[in-house]
Amino acid sequence: MKELEQRIIRDGKILDNDILKVGSFLNHQVDTKLLVDMAKETKKLFNEEITKVLTLEASGIAFACMVAAEYGVPFVFAKKSKTANLSGELVTAKVHSYTHNDDNVIFVPKEYINKEDKVLIVDDFLANGGALTGLIEVVESCGAKVVGCCVQIEKEYQNGGNTLRNKGYKVVALASIKAMTSNIIQFNE
Amino acid sequence: MKELEQRIIRDGKILDNDILKVGSFLNHQVDTKLLVDMAKETKKLFNEEITKVLTLEASGIAFACMVAAEYGVPFVFAKKSKTANLSGELVTAKVHSYTHNDDNVIFVPKEYINKEDKVLIVDDFLANGGALTGLIEVVESCGAKVVGCCVQIEKEYQNGGNTLRNKGYKVVALASIKAMTSNIIQFNE
Repeated sequence: MKELEQRIIRDGKILDNDILKVGSFLNHQVDTKLLVDMAKETKKLFNEEITKVLTLEASGIAFACMVAAEYGVPFVFAKKSKTANLSGELVTAKVHSYTHNDDNVIFVPKEYINKEDKVLIVDDFLANGGALTGLIEVVESCGAKVVGCCVQIEKEYQNGGNTLRNKGYKVVALASIKAMTSNIIQFNE
Repeated sequence: MKELEQRIIRDGKILDNDILKVGSFLNHQVDTKLLVDMAKETKKLFNEEITKVLTLEASGIAFACMVAAEYGVPFVFAKKSKTANLSGELVTAKVHSYTHNDDNVIFVPKEYINKEDKVLIVDDFLANGGALTGLIEVVESCGAKVVGCCVQIEKEYQNGGNTLRNKGYKVVALASIKAMTSNIIQFNE
């Protein structure tokens, strides 16, 4: 998606440790006009029946919200830590975060995903695929169908996306980075 | 807002400790049709120039996202804990959470709110007003203007909202709860 690629080039910042910072327009301060365009693009890419959108808190929520609104369906976000006002049966999966170098248990109340659901999983970044793998596990544990995964930005040179594609999942990125150095970002066309 | 009140009566659950659980449609699984209606209602209630919407992660993000999209402006969410890919000057405030019974430092990169901004603060719940008070402090520390605060649900029988109104802030709730027992919710008209 050209609009997103150009914005990454203009406003993204690359930090030493292979981290692409897009906080000024994508996942901390969010440009909602760009977000609406990304949601519309996502619906074109997954032009089929979706009954629910699933993501992981917190940076996936805005994208999930707008994508779900585009389809006119609810979205659910998996949480990372148990809070006081949570009750009922939970579906869980373990996720390793390479950004923060720790493990999280993610969970969704079982009642929010039922076995008739056709779920589109969305997230901000795809690198090693830890989050998507965990979210897929959650959906399938509920007996629901994973229609596919759509991420805003994929670091294609890491293994996550292609590992999932090799398993048969449809995984699409709105911007796919082939290579990145401290001052150059090269996109897949 | 009648639509929200009716939904709270239908799908909200009251837990022992004065917690109204709206996770099935408002802040864990989110009904995006209702959310769009709430965003439109918010724009009617704050029919003036807004340049930025601010909220607190994680449960305020969806509402902030849709409200900001309605105005065609960016939104920013304050974070609660320091992450690896954060840099630059931060504006902070201390917030006490009565739900989780702990203190958090919330922060926003200073570059995301500048002194020309006219900020609408939004959140899911307003009870004791800890979150809104912290968010107001963040905006004013940046030298920006707080246009007002809009929350989805206010527990009006707690002190937060009226304390802020007495200080001169415009604080509006889409649903305002006057009294709540284990099985009855009474709204302000």
